[in-house]
Amino acid sequence: MKRLFPSFVLAALAATALPAAAQFAKPEDAIRYRKAGMTVMAAHFGRVAAMANGRIPFDAKAAADNAEIATFMSKLPFAGFIDGTDKGDTRAKPEIWAEMDKFRAGASKMQEEMAKLNAVAKGGSQDAIKAAAGEVGKACKGCHDQYQKPL
Amino acid sequence: MKRLFPSFVLAALAATALPAAAQFAKPEDAIRYRKAGMTVMAAHFGRVAAMANGRIPFDAKAAADNAEIATFMSKLPFAGFIDGTDKGDTRAKPEIWAEMDKFRAGASKMQEEMAKLNAVAKGGSQDAIKAAAGEVGKACKGCHDQYQKPL
Repeated sequence: MKRLFPSFVLAALAATALPAAAQFAKPEDAIRYRKAGMTVMAAHFGRVAAMANGRIPFDAKAAADNAEIATFMSKLPFAGFIDGTDKGDTRAKPEIWAEMDKFRAGASKMQEEMAKLNAVAKGGSQDAIKAAAGEVGKACKGCHDQYQKPL
Repeated sequence: MKRLFPSFVLAALAATALPAAAQFAKPEDAIRYRKAGMTVMAAHFGRVAAMANGRIPFDAKAAADNAEIATFMSKLPFAGFIDGTDKGDTRAKPEIWAEMDKFRAGASKMQEEMAKLNAVAKGGSQDAIKAAAGEVGKACKGCHDQYQKPL
């Protein structure tokens, strides 16, 4: 019999009888998801930062496009920090779950700074983008320093 | 000295003197990026498919939200299939680079079907979403069968 869906969809379909609120079938799916979201966000934000700092050639259109994608991505990964995902293939510290309100506030701060960068990037000023990217970088680093185990 | 940027941004900043067209500093960055994009897309599309098929409770708002995110994500991963990324930590077959036009056409087909699913999902009909998700699944599977090494 020919399968209609690829394997990753079958895996999702196998998540029978999940309550609508439970977005991940297994803790490792949530961990994989949040890491993947961070990877995509970092790729796009990293490009904006590199252009702003003149380490790769500045291109106003590319900066704006990448800031837009990074801003969209900034909203996604935090859905993956659900209960039971403090162990496994993750560098997330247990402090996240002990201080979830503080962690969420840090995520919100990053999302706000990314949205500001996005707005600024549409203006095309390299200096303004550099300043806004610096604030995003600080927000990223604040949480990573506090809540991520070092490599 | 206090570092301004977290390590992943420093990695991007280290990509000195890249031409603007080269979006990834190293082939493994492109591989990691495209896999991450696929992971995020699959999580959101998989939820829509699972709801459409009644394997998790159907929720019209959640279906529409997840279809929207999956549609955004569907545009991202293919930027990672650059030259030199046919080896490494990837299941991509070398045929992708030998038949890049065909591969890109498959990607476009998937993106079109996902956009149709997104439009349909806003209508809230589970049957219509199920039909549209089936077409997306077929488009995914078409390329995976042809261009992805089995596990």
